[in-house]
Amino acid sequence: MARGIATRALAGGHQVRLVDRTAAKAENLAMELSDDTGGTATGGSSIEEGATGAAVVVLAVPYPAGREVIQQLPQTHPVVVDISNPVDFTTFDSLVVPPGVSAAEEIAAENPGARLVKAFNTTFASTLVAGEVDGRPLDVFLASDDDGAKETVAGLVRDGGLRPLDAGALRRARELEAFQFLVMTMQDRLGLGWSSAVKILP
Amino acid sequence: MARGIATRALAGGHQVRLVDRTAAKAENLAMELSDDTGGTATGGSSIEEGATGAAVVVLAVPYPAGREVIQQLPQTHPVVVDISNPVDFTTFDSLVVPPGVSAAEEIAAENPGARLVKAFNTTFASTLVAGEVDGRPLDVFLASDDDGAKETVAGLVRDGGLRPLDAGALRRARELEAFQFLVMTMQDRLGLGWSSAVKILP
Repeated sequence: MARGIATRALAGGHQVRLVDRTAAKAENLAMELSDDTGGTATGGSSIEEGATGAAVVVLAVPYPAGREVIQQLPQTHPVVVDISNPVDFTTFDSLVVPPGVSAAEEIAAENPGARLVKAFNTTFASTLVAGEVDGRPLDVFLASDDDGAKETVAGLVRDGGLRPLDAGALRRARELEAFQFLVMTMQDRLGLGWSSAVKILP
Repeated sequence: MARGIATRALAGGHQVRLVDRTAAKAENLAMELSDDTGGTATGGSSIEEGATGAAVVVLAVPYPAGREVIQQLPQTHPVVVDISNPVDFTTFDSLVVPPGVSAAEEIAAENPGARLVKAFNTTFASTLVAGEVDGRPLDVFLASDDDGAKETVAGLVRDGGLRPLDAGALRRARELEAFQFLVMTMQDRLGLGWSSAVKILP
């Protein structure tokens, strides 16, 4: 997902800093993406260094790791994106968050200074790298209680050639996470190959 | 929704019986649809008469009315389709069923003899009448614990020129209802005009 979202950000002319526990991993991906896109990506292992001064911080980690990472972000009200799908992979029959609660809200609660936006949870990694599905721009559903933060992320999405869709308040992440869980359970059964995408047509 | 689903069923060469409390209403729609499609639709006001011998019974009523109607169906294991979206229209901020529960499961519990299938809850009426969106067949998500019943409804969907998508067990109606609620809240804000459709691409 880091590769996919970074690819879109770079395609949109933005600079990207990749952060991984293993600096070399982040640096290698940064080099690869810079070469592929002609954009500027750098890599490192410090969350604080990576996030400082960034317009948008994307938590490209599985749930519940985002709850830890968001605590380590600077308290200077960064726009933070949660992309997670808190699926219970042991049963593949429910989410690990209780009914009526979203991972996005759980993550937001760990850092009240962060301006959290739910986004990119319905876009599989490969479709983000491609930037489209079936010849059409991907739909990216955005949910947030902070309209300014939502508009910032919408701009990033638009710059990358995708279509932002305002899904309302942050609590609408409940429905976004529920549906994408369903879509994930359907991939293998229907032979969709994890390269399909949810779109609202027309 | 009765008009939309009946239009698809007739287009697929099936016979349709429409039932309304007011017989004239059902009869008028039946006449109109027969004229429009060249198919055979009849109307009446008796649930029992309408349902007897039917291969599929569609509860084209809002929730929770489906809970009453399903009790009046014959106990001869009919395939019953719940299309409802149990949205709390007073707040437009949640469903009227508790988190973790679907309207489909609540309706099924009222008649254990019925072979319930959740379907058509993500397809707005106008798109069903048209039979397509943006030049593509509508996606119809099907959830049921009865594979035979699901296949029967899938056939009806396919005959009508739409694409059935197996969404798994009946409890997956929780996610289908959650997502369609979200999609409904987005219609006016995004100017989607209640004629949009959810599709999985490609």
